[in-house]
Amino acid sequence: MTPGDTRARAHIVYAHFEPRSFVAAMRDTVADSLVAQGWAVTCSDLYAERFNPVAQAQDFVERRNPGYLVYSLEQRHALEHQALAPDIAAEVERVRHADLLVLVFPVFWFSVPAILKGWIDRVFLSGLFYGGRRVYDRGGMAGKRALVVTSLGGRRHMFGPDGIHGDITSMLRPVLQGSLAYVGYEVLEPFVAYHVPYITDAERGSLLEDLHASMQALDSRATLRMPSLDCFDDELRRLQ
Amino acid sequence: MTPGDTRARAHIVYAHFEPRSFVAAMRDTVADSLVAQGWAVTCSDLYAERFNPVAQAQDFVERRNPGYLVYSLEQRHALEHQALAPDIAAEVERVRHADLLVLVFPVFWFSVPAILKGWIDRVFLSGLFYGGRRVYDRGGMAGKRALVVTSLGGRRHMFGPDGIHGDITSMLRPVLQGSLAYVGYEVLEPFVAYHVPYITDAERGSLLEDLHASMQALDSRATLRMPSLDCFDDELRRLQ
Repeated sequence: MTPGDTRARAHIVYAHFEPRSFVAAMRDTVADSLVAQGWAVTCSDLYAERFNPVAQAQDFVERRNPGYLVYSLEQRHALEHQALAPDIAAEVERVRHADLLVLVFPVFWFSVPAILKGWIDRVFLSGLFYGGRRVYDRGGMAGKRALVVTSLGGRRHMFGPDGIHGDITSMLRPVLQGSLAYVGYEVLEPFVAYHVPYITDAERGSLLEDLHASMQALDSRATLRMPSLDCFDDELRRLQ
Repeated sequence: MTPGDTRARAHIVYAHFEPRSFVAAMRDTVADSLVAQGWAVTCSDLYAERFNPVAQAQDFVERRNPGYLVYSLEQRHALEHQALAPDIAAEVERVRHADLLVLVFPVFWFSVPAILKGWIDRVFLSGLFYGGRRVYDRGGMAGKRALVVTSLGGRRHMFGPDGIHGDITSMLRPVLQGSLAYVGYEVLEPFVAYHVPYITDAERGSLLEDLHASMQALDSRATLRMPSLDCFDDELRRLQ
């Protein structure tokens, strides 16, 4: 990104181990659609970059308390003293300047792959992304949007209120609400590709066309309803 | 574990980076309570063992399809050909022989830390833990029990149907339902310690006493209601 570039910025975080996977094709579709619309697009390819997902003491080159690790307190200290591990600092810079964050991953165990979970654990810094009552619509990323683009092995009928696995949005609540909305993002309705390992190439092509159309219609995409701090008191108890 | 040992077996999977943490004390309480009741107890200390949580091609010493990685298919192939990476094979042996699996971790972002997510991603093998319609009460671990023991920064009033973050059991659904119940475990009601970073030593001691009492009353602990395959047809559509 060059200084003075006034384009809207999107950052994609992509987590799949197979470069020829459908999830890789979804990442390319997201990137190409955004570029065609004039966005400046960057991407963290977590597998290709061998991103380390394990939150640990070595994430801080200088410690507030070297004898006892409280991760969020060390994050705050490291922010103030430029003491973050370089890989974390680089990711934070990419994310904080992006108007749109897109997470592209396959669902593993109703959730994100570990390499992406650890990206959240390490990059969403206390003090910058959230802190105290600076959560949800008062979080550090308020005013920005986030989108989840994901694939599943299951069929659509296995999800939803009557489906064996339950509703997909509530299934993804730890990432949609507990991570993205928690730090302030306006969270768009996720794009979910079902039954991917078992469908034909034509069906996959059709899903990518749907995704392309979704990216073109991003501004009219539904957003998920999330808690607002306006409805809670100073101790985060619901106001009557 | 010596051959001929007829004690009931528990395996604890513990994920915290600070050896003097409250979560470490919860792990010790769980282990000590079980040993005192006559259980044989083993533990995976994921941080101490530097467990690698990233599912990847190197998890298989021989590949069914070296050109394109479908993780679950390679898991099945590796099971049949003893081709699992040694760290995975060791964890699988510990878990498959345990009557009770206990996961002990701090909640990070409404979820498990990445190092524990990756333990699930890599250890819960397709073909052994689940496969096809061998899920939920027909999963590979059917007849065994699992318990989540976890800590949170938030206060109890922030959770529940009216709480800002929503219900804790639904928050933990990816691990409770999507991982443990999915592979067949009978899932006990989780033990949740709230507000841990902010409470007194006496309050922490009291929580550990509660945990000890919970472990002594394990056989009467409530279990979570999970889907039964009896209610679904061959395509996992709900029977009318």
